[in-house]
Amino acid sequence: MAKVTVGPMPYMSVMPTVLVGANVKGKPNYMTAAWATVACMAPPMVCVAINRVRYTAKGIEENKTFSLNIPSTRQVVETDHCGLVSGVQADKSAVFRSTYGKLKTAPLAEECPVNIECRLFESVECGSHLLYIGEVMEIHADTTCLTDGKPDIAKINPIIYAQGTYFGVGKEVGKAFSAGKTYHKK
Amino acid sequence: MAKVTVGPMPYMSVMPTVLVGANVKGKPNYMTAAWATVACMAPPMVCVAINRVRYTAKGIEENKTFSLNIPSTRQVVETDHCGLVSGVQADKSAVFRSTYGKLKTAPLAEECPVNIECRLFESVECGSHLLYIGEVMEIHADTTCLTDGKPDIAKINPIIYAQGTYFGVGKEVGKAFSAGKTYHKK
Repeated sequence: MAKVTVGPMPYMSVMPTVLVGANVKGKPNYMTAAWATVACMAPPMVCVAINRVRYTAKGIEENKTFSLNIPSTRQVVETDHCGLVSGVQADKSAVFRSTYGKLKTAPLAEECPVNIECRLFESVECGSHLLYIGEVMEIHADTTCLTDGKPDIAKINPIIYAQGTYFGVGKEVGKAFSAGKTYHKK
Repeated sequence: MAKVTVGPMPYMSVMPTVLVGANVKGKPNYMTAAWATVACMAPPMVCVAINRVRYTAKGIEENKTFSLNIPSTRQVVETDHCGLVSGVQADKSAVFRSTYGKLKTAPLAEECPVNIECRLFESVECGSHLLYIGEVMEIHADTTCLTDGKPDIAKINPIIYAQGTYFGVGKEVGKAFSAGKTYHKK
């Protein structure tokens, strides 16, 4: 295996596609993002990186709440639309029906199979982007997307983001905390 | 669409499977992680959440450097092995051949198609986990995994992690910053 350096880049192999929900000036707004992951187990936290100039950033700073909404592959048009236009130019409050859960200022996109309600825990100034870390206050899931009471990837069909392209989830290649049991020291 | 609350959880739809590389007591160690994403565009940064009790955490604190190594689906056994056993009990320095790049203390797993070299920018205490944010100092990629000089997902075949299971990448479902152009206001 021959390696070459390709320079420092904001690179990750695969990422989730999420819609960051925030109220801006009292109105729900949704922004497409992919730079998101889990940040902590206990208490449960997630994080998402957002460019400091974004309209959504203003809403998070204002209310100290936000939501991460998980769209399905069948919502790829609405999802990408929310990444193409800014809330500054266009009112995106009607792209999804908004509801509110425990937090009264984090809009939840009703049509998305899963909504993660977050209270802002910390925002880290990284440079062009702020990393917003939120404590998960509640998760709402579509009853048709659950198996044994938990969100099921096979029913959600989430959108993966990588190199400017949206992908579906592929075939199972192994079970975690299990596949490695067949490892033999070289 | 009927929604139910499923309680606060450390949930994300899909995540990348990475091997966090760190030197601990002068020896390379690799730990499997999935709670990772990009944290900033300029300067380029990535982040990864690691339980504070982990052996790898000690190495990151010690050297202020780490690597995120992207394994391929064909490395699912070695990858899962690094999540099953702790560096405290087992020497994992021979699971991959280690090389070093710009940073002299962030081991790079040679067999992984992509290695991201990071200098610790900030560690955020979230609770059970610390969120390590690292500035990307260099990216090394296998020459056979590049297209137009950039890492290509179709050649890398990265491992997706979700609900205790490893998956491959599925079919393309749309182009980002493009698919949404067909959106029509409801």
